[in-house]
Amino acid sequence: MVAGNNVFKDALILEILERYRTIWSIGHAQALLGWDMETYMPPEGVAERAIASQHLSMLNQRLLLEPGFVELVEKAKQREGLTDPERGVVRVLDREITRLKKLPPKLVGEIAKTRVEAQDAWKRAREKDDYQSFKPYLDKVFTLAREVAERLGYEDEPYDALLDYYEEGFRTRDAQAMFDGIIPTLKKTLDKLMTEEDGLYPKTHPLESKEYAVGEAEEANKAVLDLLAFPWKRGRLDVSAHPFTTSMGIRDVRITTRYEGFDIKRTLYATIHEYGHALYELQVDESLMATPIDGGVSLGIHESQSRFWENIVGRSRPMAGALAEIVNKKVPSLGGVDMEEFYRYANTVKPSLIRVEADEVTYNFHILIRFRLERMLLNREISVDDLPELWNNMMEEYLGIRPKTYREGVLQDIHWSGGLIGYFPTYTIGNVVSAQILEAMQQTLGDPGSLTAQGKTREVATWLREKIHRHGSTYSPQELLERSLGKAMDTEPYKRYITRKYLMQ
Amino acid sequence: MVAGNNVFKDALILEILERYRTIWSIGHAQALLGWDMETYMPPEGVAERAIASQHLSMLNQRLLLEPGFVELVEKAKQREGLTDPERGVVRVLDREITRLKKLPPKLVGEIAKTRVEAQDAWKRAREKDDYQSFKPYLDKVFTLAREVAERLGYEDEPYDALLDYYEEGFRTRDAQAMFDGIIPTLKKTLDKLMTEEDGLYPKTHPLESKEYAVGEAEEANKAVLDLLAFPWKRGRLDVSAHPFTTSMGIRDVRITTRYEGFDIKRTLYATIHEYGHALYELQVDESLMATPIDGGVSLGIHESQSRFWENIVGRSRPMAGALAEIVNKKVPSLGGVDMEEFYRYANTVKPSLIRVEADEVTYNFHILIRFRLERMLLNREISVDDLPELWNNMMEEYLGIRPKTYREGVLQDIHWSGGLIGYFPTYTIGNVVSAQILEAMQQTLGDPGSLTAQGKTREVATWLREKIHRHGSTYSPQELLERSLGKAMDTEPYKRYITRKYLMQ
Repeated sequence: MVAGNNVFKDALILEILERYRTIWSIGHAQALLGWDMETYMPPEGVAERAIASQHLSMLNQRLLLEPGFVELVEKAKQREGLTDPERGVVRVLDREITRLKKLPPKLVGEIAKTRVEAQDAWKRAREKDDYQSFKPYLDKVFTLAREVAERLGYEDEPYDALLDYYEEGFRTRDAQAMFDGIIPTLKKTLDKLMTEEDGLYPKTHPLESKEYAVGEAEEANKAVLDLLAFPWKRGRLDVSAHPFTTSMGIRDVRITTRYEGFDIKRTLYATIHEYGHALYELQVDESLMATPIDGGVSLGIHESQSRFWENIVGRSRPMAGALAEIVNKKVPSLGGVDMEEFYRYANTVKPSLIRVEADEVTYNFHILIRFRLERMLLNREISVDDLPELWNNMMEEYLGIRPKTYREGVLQDIHWSGGLIGYFPTYTIGNVVSAQILEAMQQTLGDPGSLTAQGKTREVATWLREKIHRHGSTYSPQELLERSLGKAMDTEPYKRYITRKYLMQ
Repeated sequence: MVAGNNVFKDALILEILERYRTIWSIGHAQALLGWDMETYMPPEGVAERAIASQHLSMLNQRLLLEPGFVELVEKAKQREGLTDPERGVVRVLDREITRLKKLPPKLVGEIAKTRVEAQDAWKRAREKDDYQSFKPYLDKVFTLAREVAERLGYEDEPYDALLDYYEEGFRTRDAQAMFDGIIPTLKKTLDKLMTEEDGLYPKTHPLESKEYAVGEAEEANKAVLDLLAFPWKRGRLDVSAHPFTTSMGIRDVRITTRYEGFDIKRTLYATIHEYGHALYELQVDESLMATPIDGGVSLGIHESQSRFWENIVGRSRPMAGALAEIVNKKVPSLGGVDMEEFYRYANTVKPSLIRVEADEVTYNFHILIRFRLERMLLNREISVDDLPELWNNMMEEYLGIRPKTYREGVLQDIHWSGGLIGYFPTYTIGNVVSAQILEAMQQTLGDPGSLTAQGKTREVATWLREKIHRHGSTYSPQELLERSLGKAMDTEPYKRYITRKYLMQ
């Protein structure tokens, strides 16, 4: 059932995996604690949940750093003739141990505690549109992030240390090069679309303000997941304030969506997006069960899966048609939608204030703004006092619009309050890589949008499983891309994708 | 927020509590893993859940038995001048450490593993009514239970060692005396009711076969919990195959119920029963949060709370009226029920095969049968081969009816497959103690059924909080009863309760 005999043979690795299973179990529990907190936990349960999360984090660190365990991993680093998954286990554990060795338990506990407090403060601040009350927490978060970066060490600047945690081997200069690569194309595309009247991609669509019955939309989401061959025996769809995916292991991966009661594409595409994340975790090879490499390798590769399904498959013409059909069948409260109209509705383009509602053309500008601000804050070039003004200036610079409230600006994202500094660029990595996958897939399999709309989702899913999913974290992100797509990260396919879809219609 | 300053002052105890918080966090996680497995976990998630449960069990043992921790607890045992909660902490930890010291980790792991396997085998065996396929698992369970008993040690017989785990300080001879005390009264009551025609308590009632709409019954259960002042911000009501209560801590206690689609009293009283368990955990004093004594002290005392609310309050005449009103308001699919009729319906009495559906008069016979069989199996007087025949013989002996299938007989309960041997007598302890509580309450507060039906649930709940709930596990069960009710366990009030309700109408 666990740790299949084919991939793990070395006695030392087997001993490591046996000992690791306790640490894995803590992770399994932490995943469920996190999922539950956003779905079913009664609100006042938060006090005890915070105690548990904090102590399990510290226990995880303690067990990973036990001298006997560290020694085994050190020994395994010298071992020759290991299989790829065996080397993957050593790589992932060594990375984790190296990181946690540098962070004192007190700091790890402090970060966990600050996360709970800052997130709570952020929720209240956002409700009251009150940046001042959140500022001290944000300052604390960045102070802790700076300390983490200094302790972990970096090549060029503190941001390197943080980014590497989410995207192994990816540096600040790589992120900068990535943005430099795509921004001109996106800018050109946006400028052109904004001057067009009555083009294929409208700025707004009447369906965006149209209300739907939530119960009907739930049925539509189920039908969408059925079309995507979602394995209900190994997964769930629930509701939360912010859609997310949690993996409790290869056989238990849960996604959430949300219902706002209007603009039905939001809930449909949130569901498809999370399905992409879930499929990655669900298709890891079962021989990797309950090991350190049983999940997706990095946030960027993960986001490439969610954006592939959401945008490249989901917003394609064939899938827009399939979604329109589902909506017409399951959501009578919308009174019938036209297939061609649904494609236009699914692909409206215009500068907007909120990242999670942004279209394909403007989305990466939102990420770039956060990337720039995070770097400046970490480098102490600016302070949290300057943040709202700078945020708004950059919005004007890139998108020509200016937030009127903090809620529409600097208070919109949950990430900073959760201590997730250096996380945002992985969204753009995902966009870029999703286009690389599209081009590779088109060469051997065909168009994923058409295949999925025809009910041949399994073919697309199998391709992804073989190339990417089944490996779990066996290979580092860049190694995986080179092995599976024949090339490390490359912005050209994404530029071609955007150009073909939006400029060459 | 945690470990309030009023009750815990001793530096040694504070150090113990600080270290214990990690162990508490594992328990918090295990509680959620268990709850989730019965409510929302996708079916195929069981493989990884089993790995996690097993390893967290062993980790819990390992941390409790760490020499440094054991030493602190040993030191604390010598400490004088401790407050009651401080002494409670030492008592509970010492008990747990003493127990786990005697059980090798391999055995603890084996038990956890067997539990998952046997429970799975039991589910399949029960479906196919196939005792033979379950027999080897049951044999394994009792073999492990015997080994546990031998390792723990006992006074008179192996059963003592197992019973003490669920009911601290309670011996097999105490259980025997308890049954000897109540069985004659119950036998006499049953004999009289069975010869009556058209008495107040009918053998069956037309509502028992009447179907209801599940959605409506859900609303009725919510209304019942509203009447009982259930704190929704600190709890939930969900659905599971077998109703149960799980406490993740003082501020997060969740109950479940089930809907069979007919005989609505089953779901209503299951909900009220679980509410009784939940209220106990919810009303533990907050200063005990995240300590070893933050939950109910024993299964018997716990069951006294659930049976108090289910039977003494819930099946009283005023509450039958209140429930009838709720049903008439929320469950139109039943077409209206009469208040007096609802009392008769809620209190039908007749020998039946299934324990969980048994009435107040016959319930304890079911427990006695299991108690007798468990003892004989542990003492090797009988083997699992003899079990079905003996079960059926005892059913005839006590209740005059004989199961025709294994499902209606020896395969009906989940307990044995889960390794819970020595657990059943705590149900009867609960019945007995619930009547002691009733008499004590009547002297100072009044009739709990009337008060609750009038919407004065808070008065009843406050009385229970002051006398019992707030202490958590500060005192041992018998000490708690002596302090709060002025007397250790006593079967007289229960006999008076049964006699007054069923013989003196």
